[in-house]
Amino acid sequence: MGPRMTDIRIFPILGIGEVEPGDDLAGILVAAVSESGEAFQDGDVLVVTHKVVSKQEGRVVAVQDDDAYRELVEAESVRIVRRRGDLVIAQTSHGFICANAAVDRSNVAPGHALMLPVDPDRSAHRLRTLVERATGSQIAVVITDTFGRPWRRGLVDVAIGVSGLPAILDLRGTTDAHGNELAVTEVAIVDEIAAAADLVMGKASGIPAAVLRGMSRLAGDGRAADLVRPAAEDLFR
Amino acid sequence: MGPRMTDIRIFPILGIGEVEPGDDLAGILVAAVSESGEAFQDGDVLVVTHKVVSKQEGRVVAVQDDDAYRELVEAESVRIVRRRGDLVIAQTSHGFICANAAVDRSNVAPGHALMLPVDPDRSAHRLRTLVERATGSQIAVVITDTFGRPWRRGLVDVAIGVSGLPAILDLRGTTDAHGNELAVTEVAIVDEIAAAADLVMGKASGIPAAVLRGMSRLAGDGRAADLVRPAAEDLFR
Repeated sequence: MGPRMTDIRIFPILGIGEVEPGDDLAGILVAAVSESGEAFQDGDVLVVTHKVVSKQEGRVVAVQDDDAYRELVEAESVRIVRRRGDLVIAQTSHGFICANAAVDRSNVAPGHALMLPVDPDRSAHRLRTLVERATGSQIAVVITDTFGRPWRRGLVDVAIGVSGLPAILDLRGTTDAHGNELAVTEVAIVDEIAAAADLVMGKASGIPAAVLRGMSRLAGDGRAADLVRPAAEDLFR
Repeated sequence: MGPRMTDIRIFPILGIGEVEPGDDLAGILVAAVSESGEAFQDGDVLVVTHKVVSKQEGRVVAVQDDDAYRELVEAESVRIVRRRGDLVIAQTSHGFICANAAVDRSNVAPGHALMLPVDPDRSAHRLRTLVERATGSQIAVVITDTFGRPWRRGLVDVAIGVSGLPAILDLRGTTDAHGNELAVTEVAIVDEIAAAADLVMGKASGIPAAVLRGMSRLAGDGRAADLVRPAAEDLFR
C-alpha cells in the first residue's frame, strides 16, 4: 500500500487583495483562511502562485514596450533553448525551462512584468516558517507557476518552490501487486499538487492560493531544484 | 471570476480487484463506490488509470523477454522521437509522445505487457455512458497514464482519454484583475485532473480509480486528442 490513501480536499484561499512589495504575505494568507472560517492544520499543503510571492519580494519591473519586455526575458535567461517568432523557450537561473524565462505580463499592473523569485525554495521555506509560527501547525508550502509542455497542448501549473515535503516521491525498489518492480519509480508529487491546486484557483479568478488537505505526511524536505533534470539525462535540450 | 471556485474533494475507489478481459468495468466501479458508502453525483469526474481499461479491453500480450518487449514497443510506435540505450521516446498512434510508446510491464502479470487502449476517448465515452446508465448521474470520465517530461525529473499522470468535459479550458479573450489579456489562454484542465487524482491513487497501492468532486460543470465534451500539439506548432520533435 502506498502512503497516500485518504481523501484529499482542496479549497481556495479567497479574499486576498493586491499584494505589494514588503507585505506580510504569511499574515495575509493566515487571515484570509481564518476569515473563511477555516484554520491551517498539521499536514496541510499551502499552494501559492509565484505571482504574489514575486510581488511581495519586489520582483516587478516596468516594461515600457515589447522591446523592453524582450530585453528582460533575455536578462532572465541563462540559455535560449528554442526561438520561433516572438516565442522564446529559455532556461532560467533556477534551471527551469519555460516560455519567456517565466517573465509574465499578466496579473500585474499594465506596463509592468513579473519575474520568478530569486530563490523560490527559500521563499517557500520562509513562508512556511512564518505560517507555522503564526498558526502552530506544521505545514508544507508549494510555490507554483504555469508552464507549457512539449508535445501536449495547454498549460499546467507546476512547482517552482517547495518546503516541507519531498519534491519527488521515490518508489525505487517498490513492487506492484504482481511482484513486478515498478517502472514508475519517481513521481513528481509536488507538480501533481501544483496541478491539483490550480483546479480551485483558476487563471482569471485572481485566487492566488489554496490549501490541499489530506495528503499523508511524507517524510523529507525537498526542493523544486530537485525537479530540474540534469542536462546529461535530458534528451530535449 | 473563473468557473472553478468551489472546494474539490478527491477520493480513491477502493476494493477493485484484478480486472480481466471482458469484465464489466463500469459495474465494478459503481459497486466499489457503493460499497465504500459513497454514490456518484452529477458533475463527478471519474478518473481511471488506463491499466484497468486496457486489461478490460484485452490490450495485454505475453512478452517472453526483453527482445519481445522491444519489438512490441516498436510495433506500438508510429515514430521514434529519441533513443538512448534502452530508453525509447516514441509517438503512439494516438499522437502521444512518451517513453516506450506507453507499453508497460508493471501492474500486469509477469511475462506480460500492457498497451494503451486503441481509442481511449471512445473507451472513456463508453465507460461514462455505462456508469451514467447504472447510476442516473451525469459524470465525466478521464483515463490516465503516467508520463515523463522533458526538462523535469519525475513522472506525472496525464489524460489519455476524456469524455464529458473539455480537455482544454479556453480562456482566450479573458482579462485579469488589471485588465490585461491573459497570457495563459489554454489550460490543460484534464491533465490537471489526472495529476490531482494520482495523489489518492498512488503507484504502488494498486488503486486504479478515483472520483474528483466539486469541479464546476464545464460545458463541452473534449477529447484527449485535443491535447496533442500539432507537429507544426511543436518545437521539440
